[in-house]
Amino acid sequence: MEKTEKQVMYRTAIAKASAEDVLIRGYSLRCLIGNLSIAGLCYLLVKGVMPSESEGKMLDAILVACAEHGVRPPSIQAARQIASGGVQFQACVAGGILALGDSHGGAIEDAMNVLAAGVAAMESGAGVDEAARQILAGSKERKQRLPGYGHPTHAQDPRTTRLFELAREHGIYGKCCRLAESIAQQTKPVLGRDLPLNVDGGVAAILSEMGFDPRIGKGIFAASRVFGIVAHVFEEKLREKPMAHLPARDLIQYDGKELICGK
Amino acid sequence: MEKTEKQVMYRTAIAKASAEDVLIRGYSLRCLIGNLSIAGLCYLLVKGVMPSESEGKMLDAILVACAEHGVRPPSIQAARQIASGGVQFQACVAGGILALGDSHGGAIEDAMNVLAAGVAAMESGAGVDEAARQILAGSKERKQRLPGYGHPTHAQDPRTTRLFELAREHGIYGKCCRLAESIAQQTKPVLGRDLPLNVDGGVAAILSEMGFDPRIGKGIFAASRVFGIVAHVFEEKLREKPMAHLPARDLIQYDGKELICGK
Amino acid sequence: MEKTEKQVMYRTAIAKASAEDVLIRGYSLRCLIGNLSIAGLCYLLVKGVMPSESEGKMLDAILVACAEHGVRPPSIQAARQIASGGVQFQACVAGGILALGDSHGGAIEDAMNVLAAGVAAMESGAGVDEAARQILAGSKERKQRLPGYGHPTHAQDPRTTRLFELAREHGIYGKCCRLAESIAQQTKPVLGRDLPLNVDGGVAAILSEMGFDPRIGKGIFAASRVFGIVAHVFEEKLREKPMAHLPARDLIQYDGKELICGK
Amino acid sequence: MEKTEKQVMYRTAIAKASAEDVLIRGYSLRCLIGNLSIAGLCYLLVKGVMPSESEGKMLDAILVACAEHGVRPPSIQAARQIASGGVQFQACVAGGILALGDSHGGAIEDAMNVLAAGVAAMESGAGVDEAARQILAGSKERKQRLPGYGHPTHAQDPRTTRLFELAREHGIYGKCCRLAESIAQQTKPVLGRDLPLNVDGGVAAILSEMGFDPRIGKGIFAASRVFGIVAHVFEEKLREKPMAHLPARDLIQYDGKELICGK
Repeated sequence: MEKTEKQVMYRTAIAKASAEDVLIRGYSLRCLIGNLSIAGLCYLLVKGVMPSESEGKMLDAILVACAEHGVRPPSIQAARQIASGGVQFQACVAGGILALGDSHGGAIEDAMNVLAAGVAAMESGAGVDEAARQILAGSKERKQRLPGYGHPTHAQDPRTTRLFELAREHGIYGKCCRLAESIAQQTKPVLGRDLPLNVDGGVAAILSEMGFDPRIGKGIFAASRVFGIVAHVFEEKLREKPMAHLPARDLIQYDGKELICGK
Repeated sequence: MEKTEKQVMYRTAIAKASAEDVLIRGYSLRCLIGNLSIAGLCYLLVKGVMPSESEGKMLDAILVACAEHGVRPPSIQAARQIASGGVQFQACVAGGILALGDSHGGAIEDAMNVLAAGVAAMESGAGVDEAARQILAGSKERKQRLPGYGHPTHAQDPRTTRLFELAREHGIYGKCCRLAESIAQQTKPVLGRDLPLNVDGGVAAILSEMGFDPRIGKGIFAASRVFGIVAHVFEEKLREKPMAHLPARDLIQYDGKELICGK
Repeated sequence: MEKTEKQVMYRTAIAKASAEDVLIRGYSLRCLIGNLSIAGLCYLLVKGVMPSESEGKMLDAILVACAEHGVRPPSIQAARQIASGGVQFQACVAGGILALGDSHGGAIEDAMNVLAAGVAAMESGAGVDEAARQILAGSKERKQRLPGYGHPTHAQDPRTTRLFELAREHGIYGKCCRLAESIAQQTKPVLGRDLPLNVDGGVAAILSEMGFDPRIGKGIFAASRVFGIVAHVFEEKLREKPMAHLPARDLIQYDGKELICGK
Repeated sequence: MEKTEKQVMYRTAIAKASAEDVLIRGYSLRCLIGNLSIAGLCYLLVKGVMPSESEGKMLDAILVACAEHGVRPPSIQAARQIASGGVQFQACVAGGILALGDSHGGAIEDAMNVLAAGVAAMESGAGVDEAARQILAGSKERKQRLPGYGHPTHAQDPRTTRLFELAREHGIYGKCCRLAESIAQQTKPVLGRDLPLNVDGGVAAILSEMGFDPRIGKGIFAASRVFGIVAHVFEEKLREKPMAHLPARDLIQYDGKELICGK
């Protein structure tokens, strides 16, 4: 059996269940329940160490900020469509989470990488505004959308404004946040139009300040938006009949071929 | 267009995004960020009203209690297998959530329905132990597993013990919790073996005390376990190579037909 | 290790891969490629035995009949919404498949169970029309929708008509099909309005004639509709921008509370 | 309403359902049922035109070749784990499909892009073996795995061998297939070890010969493997109990911190 053990052995440093308790990152779950918030546990699970009080509250605010934005985003549309097919609750939730891809919450990871490059430039001597201009110029040259900026509904994203207020209060606001704001201020001169720092961009800056790995971006967003998705699936199941959201026939435009072969 | 509007109109009482803010159940998201925990927001989203401080803390403890239980449950196995196929982060998380079906977290809803029936019996005059015995006898007669009791790892579920402690502290412990405990105590005399109140059953009793609709059971569990799933997907992506968890060949038993037709 | 082997041993009678070949239900995959259609392989995989030529063609026709029905069904809406979030191709397909629940393709299994009960009545001496009337009367009494009957678009489902034509040609049409048609003919006198045998009901009758287990219903439908879903995801990715299908703002009705707490 | 119509209008050239029929790429579904195989319909749905007889049979063979490879791949493991959580049939299938990412079937798209670059070099005058060497040298230099080559089980992939035999019979074998085989033959001299053309690589070459867009790669693979996944979910549901596949405790290695905080 030796040669096969290697293949099936699961390694994990996250948790271990025993008869008496569950050990999470070395802490007794029995002790954590009632003493640590779910936001604090999220920090512990992902980073492997306990958050300070400020870090726990900051992450809690981030989870609240991204949790819900109405019925329009693809994640909610998908979850409610799936629910209308007569599907188990958790599977509808899963369908909503699927939609949180590169264009829907996915900007957090990309924005964290952009900020990391800017901070590296600052550590090599560039001023914050200069680093911001370089990032904007690079984005303009490559004709790529700058991740974390612009929003179809908000000219100024109220969630980012509030999160940065809290970051200052908690002593978390630092060079990543400054850089992110400098970029926003220079979108008009460099790109020709004002692009606000949206919630993805604001969250990216604060997660960067707290030392999170950029690759957790989609995970944090999913762990937040799941709360909104759960509420919408619940509402759909209580209020609507199956197949309730078929788009109106008049609003579908078939622009393919007409009858080629008929009986 | 009138006849079609009915078909595409989405109704929702959860949230509304405007240029300046997002309104969640009537509350400004700008105000909620930093003032309400994500557990409190979960309560607001699902029930439509603000939690008291005790209710917010109780729900927070429930979310912590269900978030993580090691690498063995199907939800974690599925999420890590999917990650090993080279899949986007959120889609691995969705795959884990899919597994939270009737046999994995799904007992909360069923247990809430069982407790509701017992409470109805108590309101018609039965004592708590009598109501418990009726439930156990009914389950025995129908040869159905009693939802919320028994656990493969824990002879006494430490999460339930701790949650009930907190329910007492917060003044939430009431007849649903009493009934749930009475059932556990009588499993030995009625069913012939001790079945502890597991975390699903404990959560069911406390959600019932707080007036939650049983149909939210799988949703609350998914919103909690998503944190463990996110941590495992993150670990898988950082530590393991693609296709890392193929079960050992010697551990698969093909018990179908042998070669019927060969070249 | 003995005590653990039991836990990890996977049993399967479906297939076994070796260095030289893959054995599927005892047949060499090398031989199957080019000699058996994918519909025939579906039969072999699910039933464990080779289809006759007629059975293979009949199942192929069923897969074609259920594969695509335009952009309106929840499965397609969900898949395209997910695609618009910037998501990997296969995950969009998975999201579409999720929607194929009890109210969307799920009627096949229920309809097969209804037909099995009717056939049992016929074997106990009831005539086909009598068995049909009993089924309709039972459905009326329990106020349950009869699975496999009625369609929002088709007054007469063209797919069922064609499938039954083929079932006759291939000698597969028998008492299940006769019963299914008799039920349709008696919907007007018993229920008060004409309900056509829809494609779920037609497929249920034919799968029953071929001896399929009702529990495969959702699986066969998923294996068919996956082809339509793949085409729609592909079209979405080639033709549309991210976040393309946000429903119009004017078509969402927020009917919850207005501002309770503002800054 | 004019300004909103643009937002909700769904455009599609795939299909249109009317009261009497469903039009697929201009063809009557009523006529297609019984006259076109599901493989042929797949071709029609994706490419928008009817396949020739050879193209239809070739795509059928591809769907058969990729449909099933035993219980070990992540897609099957995930689907069966999810099924063991007590989950609806179609949601287990969806979970299996999720796993078909960049490292599991995803090589088809990448391999098609590699072959397209090689064919472009051939059109600029390079011989087939020279184009193959350039591709291998580039892959070696960038230290990237060459998509479509190598397999953990098969030293020579029997599925590719058989598919290429059929491609010759159907007059589809051309420069993409030649190039793919030349690359395989030169893996030993250039990379130092023999890497067979695996089924992803073989399918990539043949889809390229038939003019498919590389971006359909994961879609074709998903539409094929769905048949194997359906069979495994069905077997799991019929044969196994919930939570059946927990990995053995002794085979999980917790390598995180030990108890830091206990009650």
